[in-house]
Amino acid sequence: MEPAPAAPGPRLGDSRGAERAAASSSLNPTGAEAQPRRRAPAVAAVLPAGGSGERMGVPTPKQFCPILERPLISYTLQALERVCWIKDIVVAVTGENMDTMKGIIQKYQHQRISLVEAGVTRHRSIFNGLKALAEDQPDSNLSKPEVVIIHDAVRPFVEEDVLLKVVTAAKEHGCSDYDLEFGTECLQLALKYGHINAKLVEGSPDLWKVTYKRDLYAAESIIKERISQYICIVMDTKEDENHVGHHLEEILKNELNHVKVTSGALCPPCRDLEQIILEQCYNYVCVNVMSFDFEETRRLLNMLKESNLSVLYPVVVISVYFLDYKSVPFDQKMENLMQIRDYAKEVKKRNILLCGLLIYYPQDEQKLQASLRQGATIIATLIKERNSGLVGQLLVA
Amino acid sequence: MEPAPAAPGPRLGDSRGAERAAASSSLNPTGAEAQPRRRAPAVAAVLPAGGSGERMGVPTPKQFCPILERPLISYTLQALERVCWIKDIVVAVTGENMDTMKGIIQKYQHQRISLVEAGVTRHRSIFNGLKALAEDQPDSNLSKPEVVIIHDAVRPFVEEDVLLKVVTAAKEHGCSDYDLEFGTECLQLALKYGHINAKLVEGSPDLWKVTYKRDLYAAESIIKERISQYICIVMDTKEDENHVGHHLEEILKNELNHVKVTSGALCPPCRDLEQIILEQCYNYVCVNVMSFDFEETRRLLNMLKESNLSVLYPVVVISVYFLDYKSVPFDQKMENLMQIRDYAKEVKKRNILLCGLLIYYPQDEQKLQASLRQGATIIATLIKERNSGLVGQLLVA
Repeated sequence: MEPAPAAPGPRLGDSRGAERAAASSSLNPTGAEAQPRRRAPAVAAVLPAGGSGERMGVPTPKQFCPILERPLISYTLQALERVCWIKDIVVAVTGENMDTMKGIIQKYQHQRISLVEAGVTRHRSIFNGLKALAEDQPDSNLSKPEVVIIHDAVRPFVEEDVLLKVVTAAKEHGCSDYDLEFGTECLQLALKYGHINAKLVEGSPDLWKVTYKRDLYAAESIIKERISQYICIVMDTKEDENHVGHHLEEILKNELNHVKVTSGALCPPCRDLEQIILEQCYNYVCVNVMSFDFEETRRLLNMLKESNLSVLYPVVVISVYFLDYKSVPFDQKMENLMQIRDYAKEVKKRNILLCGLLIYYPQDEQKLQASLRQGATIIATLIKERNSGLVGQLLVA
Repeated sequence: MEPAPAAPGPRLGDSRGAERAAASSSLNPTGAEAQPRRRAPAVAAVLPAGGSGERMGVPTPKQFCPILERPLISYTLQALERVCWIKDIVVAVTGENMDTMKGIIQKYQHQRISLVEAGVTRHRSIFNGLKALAEDQPDSNLSKPEVVIIHDAVRPFVEEDVLLKVVTAAKEHGCSDYDLEFGTECLQLALKYGHINAKLVEGSPDLWKVTYKRDLYAAESIIKERISQYICIVMDTKEDENHVGHHLEEILKNELNHVKVTSGALCPPCRDLEQIILEQCYNYVCVNVMSFDFEETRRLLNMLKESNLSVLYPVVVISVYFLDYKSVPFDQKMENLMQIRDYAKEVKKRNILLCGLLIYYPQDEQKLQASLRQGATIIATLIKERNSGLVGQLLVA
């Protein structure tokens, strides 16, 4: 069993409990207190994850297949641990994958996870998970739950509201005849051996299971789309220069539907930007007008590194330079490019994807609009694709 | 009804029948003659495509949703018309989408397609398609088939071998009790109204139906993967210079698993390259060593434009320059970049995605290996992502 590591996701100063406190509000409508109310049941989850993934057509078991370089099961764990009223999450993995699983828990800083050995069948794995949750295990640190959610390790898109429905139904109805009629052997197993109240709930389309290779592709695209919805444009405080940044902001808002674009400032104490990082914004455009300065981008990168934001998803940072480059000698820019390449290499290790972008900044308003539109297209491409193959490049709009 | 347009896909000189002749070999094992053998049944296909796509959560009906900017139904038509023994393909679309469908047939040069109006239900649409194939339609140019394949417009990954099994089963068994037991109303409809021999065959996982938005993502990823498997490196004939091109070829072969990398020459009469284009290679890397010359790339682009290859899929062309750029003034390269941007803009209209790539070419062998590896990563990214947002960029490895 893994010792509880630090909370995953962004943290800045002493705000690290904010996300978990917010997540707790569903079961606890007052929102004032993260402890469950008296009537909230003690809930645990069991994830059978002993599968070999033969249908996927790839050698890696599907729960360990990477999506944006992170194993699928980590997304499922993230979805469950985001729900603060799930007290314990028990994962059943085969002996040969035990170390891999421990490594995943450590690297992605998962919490409240216990590992048990998977059985030869899915049902045996569930049994082992339930056994670990039962009261009579002398060496267990787990508390006996009233409700156990049995959840596939390869269904990463489970939402809190669905889990809440499961738990509410379990509490209200117990295990009814209806459940038994539709119930699978898993449910009967839970009733027979678990000595705890269990309910198996059928999934909605959102709960879809990653089964084939095409499902991995779909999952990656869905995740990329989700983390590309929120873009922060970081502007310096020099009022006379940053109107062009606001231009870019307007064009990004127009060209990217359903995308929230916001601005933050890097001037200390940087409260705006700290808040945006806490809100889990994974896309930053750092605007520099008529300057080759890399300082703003460096400060942003330092804040991102300190925040821990990039533990779960790659963060895209685009260092934008508005320059009238057609009238400036290029040697200076070449040095700048080299600087971006070196930084990109360094922050890539922290899962931050850095690119540079020169946007042509002519006096002519019409030409400026054209280059802003092209700049917005390139920014959108880099954010949507989120591909590490292009880090360190200096693109030109 | 649309007049039969030219064959889609690449064509060069008089070789345009090659693909169709090859495709015919399954029903005609001698391969010597594209005509079906005496015992081959006359086959037609009916595609009900009147759906409104409400489950997709997008305003466009799913059969018209774009994948790499081409509507989904065009991929399904392509899969069917690739099979030369399917004589007629009848598509049922609603009146309001009739013009859209005609536009798709024209733009993507589909063949052997007839359009009928869709009914208010899927079954009515199938009925209308079957009616158009029935002998007693006085104004029909369609020949009465022995076997009709009813195929969903939103199942783009149907393969010839599956279709062949369908047709063989239909010929051998007719419509057996087995079929009726598993058969849906579609089959009964065909029997009752079609006056023709029909069989409904259940799909395999490969035949999966695009239903949700995630299926569109999966389809796009599958298609991108398929057309990225074959990369052609175009090298000039100067023997003393192109060894570095061969280096790049070796590294691409090592770094991209399951990818076929081949070389072609641009020296007239360019037979190698013509053959590679006919084999539907959608990825070209044009290598220039210690030169800013754009002539080679221009000749390649002209061949690609003439070939018609990019009608169905975007073709990626990367113009690679091996330069010791750390010791060369950069102004000259900037002009080169501008040239690539202008060409990229022009060929983008023809669905050709052009990028430039500078690869650092130092004397030091170890440094060269490092920049070759980075070059290969960038090439792989551009080919796999196939994103039009980065056309005209000059990337640096």
